[in-house]
Amino acid sequence: MTSPDARPPAAIAVVGTGLIGTSIALAGSAAGMTVTGWDPDGAVLDRARELSGTTAAGSVEDAVGAAEVAFVCTPVPAIPEAALRCLAASASVVVSDVGSVKTSVVEVIDGAEGVDRTAASRFVGGLPMAGSERSGPEGAAATLLDGAPWVLTPGPGTSPAAVGTVTACVEAFGAHPLMMDAERHDRLVAVVSHLPQIVSSALMAFAAREEHLEPDVMTLAAGGFRDLTRLAASTPVLWEQILRANRTTVAGELERFAAALGSVRDMLLADDGAALLGLLEDARPARLGLAAKPQVRGGVVILQVRIPDRAGVLAVLSGAMGARDVSIEDLQIVHSPEGGGGTLHVTVAAGQVDAASMALAEAGFRPVRLA
Amino acid sequence: MTSPDARPPAAIAVVGTGLIGTSIALAGSAAGMTVTGWDPDGAVLDRARELSGTTAAGSVEDAVGAAEVAFVCTPVPAIPEAALRCLAASASVVVSDVGSVKTSVVEVIDGAEGVDRTAASRFVGGLPMAGSERSGPEGAAATLLDGAPWVLTPGPGTSPAAVGTVTACVEAFGAHPLMMDAERHDRLVAVVSHLPQIVSSALMAFAAREEHLEPDVMTLAAGGFRDLTRLAASTPVLWEQILRANRTTVAGELERFAAALGSVRDMLLADDGAALLGLLEDARPARLGLAAKPQVRGGVVILQVRIPDRAGVLAVLSGAMGARDVSIEDLQIVHSPEGGGGTLHVTVAAGQVDAASMALAEAGFRPVRLA
Repeated sequence: MTSPDARPPAAIAVVGTGLIGTSIALAGSAAGMTVTGWDPDGAVLDRARELSGTTAAGSVEDAVGAAEVAFVCTPVPAIPEAALRCLAASASVVVSDVGSVKTSVVEVIDGAEGVDRTAASRFVGGLPMAGSERSGPEGAAATLLDGAPWVLTPGPGTSPAAVGTVTACVEAFGAHPLMMDAERHDRLVAVVSHLPQIVSSALMAFAAREEHLEPDVMTLAAGGFRDLTRLAASTPVLWEQILRANRTTVAGELERFAAALGSVRDMLLADDGAALLGLLEDARPARLGLAAKPQVRGGVVILQVRIPDRAGVLAVLSGAMGARDVSIEDLQIVHSPEGGGGTLHVTVAAGQVDAASMALAEAGFRPVRLA
Repeated sequence: MTSPDARPPAAIAVVGTGLIGTSIALAGSAAGMTVTGWDPDGAVLDRARELSGTTAAGSVEDAVGAAEVAFVCTPVPAIPEAALRCLAASASVVVSDVGSVKTSVVEVIDGAEGVDRTAASRFVGGLPMAGSERSGPEGAAATLLDGAPWVLTPGPGTSPAAVGTVTACVEAFGAHPLMMDAERHDRLVAVVSHLPQIVSSALMAFAAREEHLEPDVMTLAAGGFRDLTRLAASTPVLWEQILRANRTTVAGELERFAAALGSVRDMLLADDGAALLGLLEDARPARLGLAAKPQVRGGVVILQVRIPDRAGVLAVLSGAMGARDVSIEDLQIVHSPEGGGGTLHVTVAAGQVDAASMALAEAGFRPVRLA
C-alpha cells in the first residue's frame, strides 16, 4: 500500500499544540524537518513555541502553508473540521490526525459536502500509542513517540502515496507504523481502553454512593480496589468526547461485558464452584502473560516485599535492583490501610527473578514470590 | 460491649499457620504471649515454627490446650469445623477467626448441632485488614498487623467477656479493633473487594477471548487496562472459596453493578453527553479523595514523569524524593508498549507537591502535575 520510495517530509504542520502536538513538533525538529504550529489558545501556542522551537502561525491555513504533512492534534470533536480546513488550505498537503477514535473522523471527512474524492484521499487517520491523554504542552517530548506503535487507518479511498508519506514521516519520528482498519481499531480500543474507563468510573461512583450510607466502606478497601478505580481520576471532558465519538461500538461491548457479569451472578446464585473457578483460572494466566512490556510478555514474576513506611525506602530497594541490573517492570504499593508500613508488589522478568531476589535479600528485604 | 478490665491473654493458639496465622504467632510472641500452633500440613507447621518460634502441637486439641484465645486462620471453608473443634477442646477458650467472610461462619457455629449457647457465645468473628491473601508462612511478620484495622463481628449471643478478651489481645498486637455487624461487613466487602475481583477477572477473560480473534488487541492496551486486570492474577481457588462463602450478597451487588453499566450503555446509545459527563465527574473527586493512606486522604497530587527504560532510573528518582523527605504514596509505571522508555505516575500528598517537584527537577526529571 505504501510507496517504497516515499521519503520523510521536509516540512510539517502541527494543528493543536498540546502534549502530542508538541511532541510531534519536537520529533519533527529532531528529524531535521521544518515545523509550523497553530493552536486556538494563544498561550498554549506560545508555550509550545518556547518548548519546541516550532514557528507559530496565525491560522490553520498559515500553518499548513508549504507543509507536506499536517498533523491534526486537537481534541476529538474538533478533528474533522480542522482536518477539512487543512485539506482545503493546500492542494498537495497530506493530513493525518492523532484522535483516539478513528471511524467517526474518517466518515465525516469522506462525507463532507464540498470535499472532493481527491482531497479526501489525502487524509490518513492515525494514532500514536503514546500513553498519556494529557492536554498541555508541558509534558511533551520527542521520546514520547520514539519506539511507540503508531496506528494508521487508511481506507479504500486513501491515496497510497499519502499513506507512504505519513508512514515515512512517522518512521522518521522513530515510531512503528501499524496498519489497521479504522472500524477494527475502534472495536479493539473499545475493549481494552474505553470499556475499562467506564468500568473504573462506574465502580468508583458505585462505591462512593455506598460510602455516603456506610462510612466504613473505604476502610475495608485494599490495594485491589485502588487499582480498579485509578482510571476514574482521568479528565472527565476528554473521556466524554472519546466515548461519545465511539459510542455505538462501546455500547455494544458494554452490553456484552454486562452480560458476562450477569453470568457470573448466575454462577454465584447456583453455587457453581466449577464455573466460578473456571473463570478465575482462565483469567489468571492471561493476566500474568500481560507483562509490562511485550519484550517480557509470557514470563514475569511478582515478588511481594514488606516495607516500612519511610521516605527513601523505595530508593534503597530500587537502588539494590539497579545495582544488579534488574529492571523493575511494574510496581504496586499496597499500604496498610492506616499506615505503619506496607507491602510492595514488584514485577520482574522471569529470567531476572533470582538476581532480583538476591538483590532484595542483600538490601535487607524478604521477598516472597507470588506468581 | 467490652469489659473495661479485660487484659490480653498470656497464652494463645493459632490453628492454620499460613501468612496470617504465623504473623499472629509472631505478634503474640512479641507481646510476651505463649504461642502454640497447629497446621494440617506438617511442612507448613515446621516452617512456621522455624520462622516464629511457636510451639508445634500435634492436633487442634493439643494446640488449644491451656490457651485463653485460639485464632482459626484456615481457608474460609474449613473455618466452622476448626472453630467448633477449638470450642469443644476447652470449656474456657475464646475462639476467633480471620476469614474474609463473616456471616456464613457465624451462622454455622450458631446453628451447629450439639453446640450449646454457652460454647457458641465464646466465638468472636474477626478479620485483620492486613492486605495480602497469600497462603504461605514465608511473608509473615508481626508488623503486618501493627496499625491495621481489625474487624470484630460479635453478634447478640456473643459473650461480652469474650469480646473483651479478643479486643485486648488484638490491641496487644498493635492493631485497631473495629466493631461491625457481620452482615454489614459482608455487604461492604462485597462492594470494595469481592465485586472488584470479579470485575477484574471477567474483564481479563473478556479481552483474552478477543485476543484469540484479534492478536493486535493487547498492543492497544495501555496502563489503565493493566491496572484494572491486576487482581485477575490472584489465586483462583482462594477467591472461589471467598466468593462462594459470600455468594448471595455478592450476586446482589453484581446485579446492581451490571445495571449501572447498563445505564451507561443507555447514555451512550442516546448520545447523552451530560449524563456521561456527570458519571465521570462524580467518580473523579471520589477517586482523588481515596489516597493511598487515610492520613493523606483528601489531598494527593499525581505527577507524571517520563523515564528512560533503564535499570536504576527508579532508584535515582526515589532517592531524590527521599533526600527531600517526600513520601511516595503510590507509583504506577506506564511503559511504552514497545519499550524505549515510559511514563511514571507518582502520587504524593498535596502538601509535599512542591518539594516533590523540586526534588524531581533537581534529579533531571520534568514532572507534570496531572491532578
